Amino acid sequence: MLAVHLDKGRVSARRTPVPRRPPGHALIRLLCGGICNTDLELQRGYYGFRGIPGHEFVGEVVGAETASLIGKRVVGEINLACGECGFCAKGLGRHCLRRTVLGIVKQPGAFREFLTLPEVNLHLVPREMATQTAVFTEPVAAACEILDQVRIAKGERVVVLGDGKLGLLISQVLVASGLRVHQFGRHRNKLRIAERAGVSTEIVKKNLPVAEFDWVVEATGSAEGLRQAISMTRPRGTLILKSTIHGLVPVDTAKVIVNEITMVGSRCGRFEPALKLMRSGKLQVEELISDRFPLASAARAFERAAEKGVLKVLLI
Amino acid sequence: MLAVHLDKGRVSARRTPVPRRPPGHALIRLLCGGICNTDLELQRGYYGFRGIPGHEFVGEVVGAETASLIGKRVVGEINLACGECGFCAKGLGRHCLRRTVLGIVKQPGAFREFLTLPEVNLHLVPREMATQTAVFTEPVAAACEILDQVRIAKGERVVVLGDGKLGLLISQVLVASGLRVHQFGRHRNKLRIAERAGVSTEIVKKNLPVAEFDWVVEATGSAEGLRQAISMTRPRGTLILKSTIHGLVPVDTAKVIVNEITMVGSRCGRFEPALKLMRSGKLQVEELISDRFPLASAARAFERAAEKGVLKVLLI
Repeated sequence: MLAVHLDKGRVSARRTPVPRRPPGHALIRLLCGGICNTDLELQRGYYGFRGIPGHEFVGEVVGAETASLIGKRVVGEINLACGECGFCAKGLGRHCLRRTVLGIVKQPGAFREFLTLPEVNLHLVPREMATQTAVFTEPVAAACEILDQVRIAKGERVVVLGDGKLGLLISQVLVASGLRVHQFGRHRNKLRIAERAGVSTEIVKKNLPVAEFDWVVEATGSAEGLRQAISMTRPRGTLILKSTIHGLVPVDTAKVIVNEITMVGSRCGRFEPALKLMRSGKLQVEELISDRFPLASAARAFERAAEKGVLKVLLI
Repeated sequence: MLAVHLDKGRVSARRTPVPRRPPGHALIRLLCGGICNTDLELQRGYYGFRGIPGHEFVGEVVGAETASLIGKRVVGEINLACGECGFCAKGLGRHCLRRTVLGIVKQPGAFREFLTLPEVNLHLVPREMATQTAVFTEPVAAACEILDQVRIAKGERVVVLGDGKLGLLISQVLVASGLRVHQFGRHRNKLRIAERAGVSTEIVKKNLPVAEFDWVVEATGSAEGLRQAISMTRPRGTLILKSTIHGLVPVDTAKVIVNEITMVGSRCGRFEPALKLMRSGKLQVEELISDRFPLASAARAFERAAEKGVLKVLLI
């Protein structure tokens, strides 16, 4: 079978054997994969990753212990948890200290013709949902995670800083959840996608509002964005850190303390609310698709995904 | 009258006129002042401060609009708020954007024979409470602020990092509030004060526990302490930032995001819970007094307060 390989920044598609299905796992034929910023970061050498990347996918089950799964379209939660520790007992396998992570930490990823994943990680894709919609489940779940972590009353105003893939999904999810969303970004064309979903938008200017918003989501992926997000948050307000910035980021902690700001780190989310929201038709995730490539052209797909202004690139 | 002056790092005691009492204010004769780390930072040039420092004090009211105040011992909240904005309406004058702050921001401080403060800022010192106990009200209120911001169930374990003045008051307040407190510090003699209050303690070693505590309070005032505090916090745990670190602090935000840590900036607190707790006899704040100096010897007092190993220095 064909599998994408990442090694010291080089992306290639290689022939490898079809994986053997471990007990409790399903064997899944890839239907569609999505390239995420994390994949591009793995390519740049973060986490010392080397192997098969990919964690956003839709597949068809071709082998499983649970017979009813076979032939079904599925998406899969990406954290493979031990199932036994305190976090797992609380349903927080995403924080299991012994976890591996599909295509990220000690687990070959989804960008290959066939992959395996524990059956407990799988969720059925609703029949009426297009594969190229369902492939957004994982990043939509990451956006939904915000509402699992903090309680924001309906109708409250939330500011999203950043108009990349994640920022656009976050603003759509927050609007669909009954919040008033205002998004700052640098790209008129990207912000237009948010506007069509009912988000008010604004191009980032030199001087952004100071200490003005009770709820701010940082989704720029830049140290400068984080600095601005802290500055925009009102005293006693909450800033949700959604985009990973690598290395040590210079932070004005005095401002966080003087203004008693709460900063909430936020990562992966549960798939259930994401699938429910996507099924409701309230999200227009397909608008984020910039391009599609066959698995064999993964190298070109990764190049394309790294281009300025490009949103989601799919592998099909 | 005598007043302490701070100018470009130099501390001196000078003769100045007794201040005139503005409407709504009380004229207060200083009984005791406490030198705080913030005062030492003002001396080092933070905030470009120049003038009369001091915000921890106990005084006797000698002039007031409310006649019943005269002759009473008082402590005073340090934020002078506008009383009209949204924060003030919510009882959060500590965050009023138009506030001045006694001895810190645009308001001459308490280290002078007579000072003025709005009557609404004053709290009576209970008759049975010693002046040298009551002078701790402001920093104890800052410690109590933690429990105003986050809900920690009785009996839960909280880790305090740092054994300076603030760290020791925090651990005492948390123990007195029914929590199990474990404190890390670098000074055996300081940690002993915590131990006598019922805190379990540990000298900081090279390798501190990783991802082990649900509740961590950072009170070291150092960038390295903040790094350790983030590392010690368990996934989905809460880290309270209590000590101000000046300038831009390098923070591993990726760890905050991956572990979904909540970081809560925490500053001044309400005086009511502080006075109540101090009155209960559950705190032994006097153990933190390292030295006492008359106001005229303020320069020596500031020198002493800046010495290694010294805790609270009082001006009397």
